[in-house]
Amino acid sequence: MKKIAIIGATGYTGSELVRILTHHPEVSIEVITSETHKGMAFSDIHPQFRGIADDPLRSADEIENYSPDLVFLALPHGISMQFVEKLWNKNIKIIDLSGDFRLNSPDTYYQWYNIEHSFPEGFKHAIFGLPELNRDRIKNSHLVANPGCFPTGAILSVYPLLKHNLVNPEKIIIDSKTGVTGAGVKPKNVTHFPNVHDNFKAYNISGHRHTIEIQQELSKAGEQSAVVQFTPHLLPVDRGILSTAYTFPNQQLSDKEVKNIFKEMYKDTFFIRYNDALPEIKNVRATNYVDISVSYDQRTGNIISLTALDNLVKGAAGQAVQNMNLMLNLDELSGLNLIPVHP
Amino acid sequence: MKKIAIIGATGYTGSELVRILTHHPEVSIEVITSETHKGMAFSDIHPQFRGIADDPLRSADEIENYSPDLVFLALPHGISMQFVEKLWNKNIKIIDLSGDFRLNSPDTYYQWYNIEHSFPEGFKHAIFGLPELNRDRIKNSHLVANPGCFPTGAILSVYPLLKHNLVNPEKIIIDSKTGVTGAGVKPKNVTHFPNVHDNFKAYNISGHRHTIEIQQELSKAGEQSAVVQFTPHLLPVDRGILSTAYTFPNQQLSDKEVKNIFKEMYKDTFFIRYNDALPEIKNVRATNYVDISVSYDQRTGNIISLTALDNLVKGAAGQAVQNMNLMLNLDELSGLNLIPVHP
Amino acid sequence: MKKIAIIGATGYTGSELVRILTHHPEVSIEVITSETHKGMAFSDIHPQFRGIADDPLRSADEIENYSPDLVFLALPHGISMQFVEKLWNKNIKIIDLSGDFRLNSPDTYYQWYNIEHSFPEGFKHAIFGLPELNRDRIKNSHLVANPGCFPTGAILSVYPLLKHNLVNPEKIIIDSKTGVTGAGVKPKNVTHFPNVHDNFKAYNISGHRHTIEIQQELSKAGEQSAVVQFTPHLLPVDRGILSTAYTFPNQQLSDKEVKNIFKEMYKDTFFIRYNDALPEIKNVRATNYVDISVSYDQRTGNIISLTALDNLVKGAAGQAVQNMNLMLNLDELSGLNLIPVHP
Amino acid sequence: MKKIAIIGATGYTGSELVRILTHHPEVSIEVITSETHKGMAFSDIHPQFRGIADDPLRSADEIENYSPDLVFLALPHGISMQFVEKLWNKNIKIIDLSGDFRLNSPDTYYQWYNIEHSFPEGFKHAIFGLPELNRDRIKNSHLVANPGCFPTGAILSVYPLLKHNLVNPEKIIIDSKTGVTGAGVKPKNVTHFPNVHDNFKAYNISGHRHTIEIQQELSKAGEQSAVVQFTPHLLPVDRGILSTAYTFPNQQLSDKEVKNIFKEMYKDTFFIRYNDALPEIKNVRATNYVDISVSYDQRTGNIISLTALDNLVKGAAGQAVQNMNLMLNLDELSGLNLIPVHP
Repeated sequence: MKKIAIIGATGYTGSELVRILTHHPEVSIEVITSETHKGMAFSDIHPQFRGIADDPLRSADEIENYSPDLVFLALPHGISMQFVEKLWNKNIKIIDLSGDFRLNSPDTYYQWYNIEHSFPEGFKHAIFGLPELNRDRIKNSHLVANPGCFPTGAILSVYPLLKHNLVNPEKIIIDSKTGVTGAGVKPKNVTHFPNVHDNFKAYNISGHRHTIEIQQELSKAGEQSAVVQFTPHLLPVDRGILSTAYTFPNQQLSDKEVKNIFKEMYKDTFFIRYNDALPEIKNVRATNYVDISVSYDQRTGNIISLTALDNLVKGAAGQAVQNMNLMLNLDELSGLNLIPVHP
Repeated sequence: MKKIAIIGATGYTGSELVRILTHHPEVSIEVITSETHKGMAFSDIHPQFRGIADDPLRSADEIENYSPDLVFLALPHGISMQFVEKLWNKNIKIIDLSGDFRLNSPDTYYQWYNIEHSFPEGFKHAIFGLPELNRDRIKNSHLVANPGCFPTGAILSVYPLLKHNLVNPEKIIIDSKTGVTGAGVKPKNVTHFPNVHDNFKAYNISGHRHTIEIQQELSKAGEQSAVVQFTPHLLPVDRGILSTAYTFPNQQLSDKEVKNIFKEMYKDTFFIRYNDALPEIKNVRATNYVDISVSYDQRTGNIISLTALDNLVKGAAGQAVQNMNLMLNLDELSGLNLIPVHP
Repeated sequence: MKKIAIIGATGYTGSELVRILTHHPEVSIEVITSETHKGMAFSDIHPQFRGIADDPLRSADEIENYSPDLVFLALPHGISMQFVEKLWNKNIKIIDLSGDFRLNSPDTYYQWYNIEHSFPEGFKHAIFGLPELNRDRIKNSHLVANPGCFPTGAILSVYPLLKHNLVNPEKIIIDSKTGVTGAGVKPKNVTHFPNVHDNFKAYNISGHRHTIEIQQELSKAGEQSAVVQFTPHLLPVDRGILSTAYTFPNQQLSDKEVKNIFKEMYKDTFFIRYNDALPEIKNVRATNYVDISVSYDQRTGNIISLTALDNLVKGAAGQAVQNMNLMLNLDELSGLNLIPVHP
Repeated sequence: MKKIAIIGATGYTGSELVRILTHHPEVSIEVITSETHKGMAFSDIHPQFRGIADDPLRSADEIENYSPDLVFLALPHGISMQFVEKLWNKNIKIIDLSGDFRLNSPDTYYQWYNIEHSFPEGFKHAIFGLPELNRDRIKNSHLVANPGCFPTGAILSVYPLLKHNLVNPEKIIIDSKTGVTGAGVKPKNVTHFPNVHDNFKAYNISGHRHTIEIQQELSKAGEQSAVVQFTPHLLPVDRGILSTAYTFPNQQLSDKEVKNIFKEMYKDTFFIRYNDALPEIKNVRATNYVDISVSYDQRTGNIISLTALDNLVKGAAGQAVQNMNLMLNLDELSGLNLIPVHP
């Protein structure tokens, strides 16, 4: 059994990691940390875990006592980089679920996060943790930057088209709709029930930080840099992201051709389920699946591709476990045979 | 007091008409009809109206006994055209809330609705009932085709840009999200609570009938025909449509310029509330408002415009009452001073 | 026109007062106050009111400049009593929407609110503002304590039975379920969307402050003091309270008899709609109605009575306006002809 | 590996059985049947299972070809009894998830279901499948009547009190609130999204069929027959039942005493989690847990006990799997180590 530590117990990514790892057959959670709640049981913070995860939370200072093979950082950006620096050179593999090491350089980071990065060294080593695109590099990595919740679906829905140079890379529209857990565990106006329930709106248009993450990874797909218009919206649901991507072919195409490209590209990726039927977020709830569909509109000549995933699983903790499996040389699917909870 | 008849009592547009017209100061509802429930009280079908609208429902055959000045048809398409034909030449003004007379010709109707139209004559007279664009023609009309729930917001969000020939008319993306009442009062799989709640999906992509309605009206805005990509999605809310429109400028622009064009265009339209803040569907709930916002993304060079409206009010019954006010030469705002119910 | 002031603009009772009073034909809102947001427009805090209520908020210190005939206090308990004291003896009528003057005495107040009352004098004058029971006393009052959101329905569902001495006053079970707006406008853990949505729980069992309010008023119904078991639960909805009351007859009864007692008692109360059909909260949404139903279970010999109301209207602002109408000698129904928003 | 058949694939209990059994380490699903959809893949009916359960559905006529050790009947009542009769004497164990064999006699069945029972013989053999009360009898049974969704929680919340003869057995109030999946997979008015969402109501008061099931089992707890008042309410959530039970002590008690009785009674039952904290339905979502809490109200002298469970798991399919484990002599917890999905 490989030994695992989770730093940051109070948020949703922390509790999802525990939900998934508790029954993982090849790793054991040795320690979960929280500075604010240390000494309390994990199940005091997340009462759904009573009888399942009742061990006391520790301080992050103690984690070396537990000799972890791998550490998950389920922390806010800005904080996470400090832990990466501390754990560096200690022969502990790291998966960072924050945005601190996802971008190409400290400069781009500064531009979009408005924070001076305290561990620029990390950028040389960090691998963007989207296994369906970067499997081999993740396997050999010591530091994986787990993608943001929006990018995974957004990237996968456009990647095949850019890879085959079928669409204009400079006009990519991604209209995304996310559940509320994406906004975190801490109550704020934007997550206050009467402000969300029976409501719907866009937010952070033009400036959301995941824009650059999507654009950066899509720029690696084809021959040309991508320009991405990304618009997030807030759904009155707990979990789930549906992304609707619009792209504009630079040549004659048929619906069948486009569908075949997607089927071909994703035929061996267990978690990416291509289907002509349109994806729904409830069909992937609480699992690591991405449901995906594409169509070419004969009348307009545009391509519409859609993805659905669970922002806390394939959009965070599940993808992190998939990355862990690769980094620890385990079966990539291990512990991730989750079945969607629907209804 | 002008006399009003409502044909079709069981659906949501019927009950919204009653909700709005009950306190209208210048008209009185003389008769409400339903073939399936005739004899029952309106409030037996819609119990929220107990003590408010308890009159028995009549057969549509009887409506001439009530000498209505104007009749609302709150019926399914295909049925509605039969009533228009019957009422034609009887000196009764008609507002049809179905899709039967919204398109330019019986041919286009056949193409998108797959029904042979039984009263093609009507197309010569029907006015598309979007008062903010067609006010004068509506005033003089005897037959108004009340717009579909999606087109009103979609059209208003792009119209000013086409009017000023600022964007490519052949690449218009409208990504819309609607509440469930748009699917009607009759239970079906797609409206079954466990299939909608905590779920989200697109539907009818490429082929939704409102596509052609939007495209037709936007083609009147500028010098060139428009091509519209319209994608509806189903929100787990009762009411409300948010539309996110993406357009592509054909020239240098600034955010300020674009905002000013919208402010200018909508400055005197009581129900269209332009604001730089992003619209939310709950801010217009149960009212005839359309909240609208636009921005130009300096980085990508794209324009994003958003509208929020209540699909049952400005998207159906409220707009119908606004049209009625114009057709009966009443104050356009009469009876429509509704205040949003939020939360 | 009578002149009205509203002290406390930021909460839900404040915004509901504005929603209802804006179109009240016989009063005008002269001033709305907020210490934290003074200078801002009311619609900056509640954007649904853009174009409807854009006047700047004032400090409460200024309200005498507006010579109000009546002031609504939409403030937290503990704060409200200070304003009552300040406004006392100024010939301004007061409706207090907090719990500061609802109980019989400062001692009982201390016992349930754990606050030393700073204006015990007020208890001599305050009338419990449930018009259906206290109409005449409200008319002549200068200080009305508007009931809590739970008590109105709870009291009305049991009052007729105690009035006729039909049930054991010492075993009254009231199981209530409320929407989230009852918890106020300020985000907290208990109102965080992911903690409420798709969830349901009881809270504050045995100790909720509305228990004593219900018990106190029910003790006035019959010959004997009442003992009330009150259990609130939190529904994943915005508005609405459904209360299910269980009482135990002390004599032979029939279902018909029990129903007749309710019909008789509420036959002339416009806002109380008795019906044998079971009440639903959506049937009264955004209105001042209370829907009520009762049945006697032949098999068990128990009585079940149910009420539905909107906690922000009949449970707060609507009832306050009804009280205002009485205190200002206006038509009791004036401004309250609201129609339920369903769906 | 034991061989399992599931008769009835289209409903929610069917799909939950598949969700739970797919990863059960000691049984394999040999065949799933559906008369209406035979030949289609299970995942055509329940698309969340794509890639997980794609086998074609068979006719129930074929099930003997698969030599099942045990058959689950996930069918409507009235139909289920026919299959029990057909499978009787074939050495196949049966778990019936319908109400056909839960009651004591064909007469009681007729009284509450208004159907003449076609296989009265079954009543002699059927065991009420609540393992925490009937473990040993279930182990030796060939026919288990799986409890209705409401009874499990309702029974467990009152049983300890009756067992110790602490409360009046003739005045038991159970106020229950359930999610919509309890109403089944078929769309109807009562499950139409706009009729449920943002709504809440009681239904079937006095006459719900689970009343007699609860009363029958509670009558076995103490020395005296129980009389149960059961009131179901419909929550705008997918899954989950919270039951609030009120009972009336016949002697002096303390809160501590009452809590200890519950703790003692449930200390060794893995799935029943007693905690002083009030239960919430989301804390048990998608699992076989029942969260339970009790308190004695010093002021009123009443006892309030609360339970939360997932109506599709401990209220149906999960409990059925627990019964299967016992009947097949497997570890009772096998396949049921589910972790709540929250949020």
